[in-house]
Amino acid sequence: MHILDKLNQRIDQTKSLLCIGLDSDITKIPHSFLQTDNPQFAFNRSIIDATQDICCAYKINSAFYEANGLKGWMAMAQTIDYLHQNIPQALIIMDAKRADIGNTSAQYAQAFFETLRCDAITLHPWLGKEALAPFLAYPDKASIILCKTSNLGGNEIQDWSIHDQNKAIPLWQKLARQVSQEWNELKNCMLVVGATQPEALKIIRSEVGDMPILVPGIGAQGGDLKAILTAGLTANKRGLIINASRSIIFAESPRTAAMDLHQAIQSHCI
Amino acid sequence: MHILDKLNQRIDQTKSLLCIGLDSDITKIPHSFLQTDNPQFAFNRSIIDATQDICCAYKINSAFYEANGLKGWMAMAQTIDYLHQNIPQALIIMDAKRADIGNTSAQYAQAFFETLRCDAITLHPWLGKEALAPFLAYPDKASIILCKTSNLGGNEIQDWSIHDQNKAIPLWQKLARQVSQEWNELKNCMLVVGATQPEALKIIRSEVGDMPILVPGIGAQGGDLKAILTAGLTANKRGLIINASRSIIFAESPRTAAMDLHQAIQSHCI
Repeated sequence: MHILDKLNQRIDQTKSLLCIGLDSDITKIPHSFLQTDNPQFAFNRSIIDATQDICCAYKINSAFYEANGLKGWMAMAQTIDYLHQNIPQALIIMDAKRADIGNTSAQYAQAFFETLRCDAITLHPWLGKEALAPFLAYPDKASIILCKTSNLGGNEIQDWSIHDQNKAIPLWQKLARQVSQEWNELKNCMLVVGATQPEALKIIRSEVGDMPILVPGIGAQGGDLKAILTAGLTANKRGLIINASRSIIFAESPRTAAMDLHQAIQSHCI
Repeated sequence: MHILDKLNQRIDQTKSLLCIGLDSDITKIPHSFLQTDNPQFAFNRSIIDATQDICCAYKINSAFYEANGLKGWMAMAQTIDYLHQNIPQALIIMDAKRADIGNTSAQYAQAFFETLRCDAITLHPWLGKEALAPFLAYPDKASIILCKTSNLGGNEIQDWSIHDQNKAIPLWQKLARQVSQEWNELKNCMLVVGATQPEALKIIRSEVGDMPILVPGIGAQGGDLKAILTAGLTANKRGLIINASRSIIFAESPRTAAMDLHQAIQSHCI
């Protein structure tokens, strides 16, 4: 199934644009899970069980598993298996922020699209389309390109001024245009635009048509939900995947926190 | 020990600027290793044993291990342990091409600098210095920033024209300047410049003083060794770490291939 069809079916099913980020830092997960054999997986399973009917996607941040070495990699693989077995309709976004020359990108595509069977991966743009071709070749998987990020220092490089058609535009805008015009032949590209960047999101939306945009940074990073939805929703009230991680998974009640955000998003979409 | 001291001591010891890339693709390693319990590690051990006196560094490409799932991650960790136990003087470069927002970069720094005890990591520049701060905080570890890459399509984004001090320069040059002037406070930054880019390397050398530059793309990717050394060596005949991967590790005799390249580099340095 094409990745856009999978995403749209999942949104039809849940009426949700919410993505839950499993940034399951072993030093922050509740003490009760640390007694189990595989704390990161046990914690993730509890989050998934509590939220599976109110989100369109789960985003797995590979760093939080790699930091835990072999055990962490195992917890990541088990979490993905659990999602496949229990909620095959939900998108599994591997937030791995990879990108390398072609023969190496092919290995990462093997690792994340084939071995782990994720539906999408986040990618750095620096090496260009040719290097990312092994990811872009999958119509049933999304390549989610970092464009305008949520971090405080994201402007340092992303705001550098590029000349394009005799007009100076920021690097992030030029990249959005390039991905939309040149990289998206199979309609399987998406972009990352941080929730702290509503003005940039509005410009990016105008560059990329209905392309889905993954928006991290709601919650712990303080992004403004209303501003983001106003700037980024498409005419049919889709086109955004709104991610929250820490503010949901480490909440006293993850379900309540997820439901609150899901409903806040819905209230702007109706 | 500061990372530059470690690098210089190792070069003093071996008289070598050669780095051997352990891109140990499980589908390409000789059949005899496939009979062992842990083929990628057994293969790497044979390469390390054959080359340890003629290289300053080993570069481990994480993609080729992640593609093999849990077993691959184990082989990668065992390879690093083997290097620590047997050649603690050699630099261990983790060619992971990571970069994420600060709290996630901290997890990757934990994974690669602490858990795996690597000496250096390759990093994407897109998110800026602030996001890479957890890596840059280690004076005894190198942050090797992707600048001008060896791949055919590397020019697509890296050659975009940036205005800097009323002059148009390519993005890669602006980045080299930025890293040199703003990111290198602890003198622990290095850059990646592909061996297919000698003209860019010459310009980058003029931007960054004596900063070490990791040069992949000699060998399988066809970089011109003499042109690279001429363009990139510092006045004291250092400043470059010349990496070859496939052309050495999959050669009929990896030691002969490594020795040939080591001596070819030396002949230009004398």
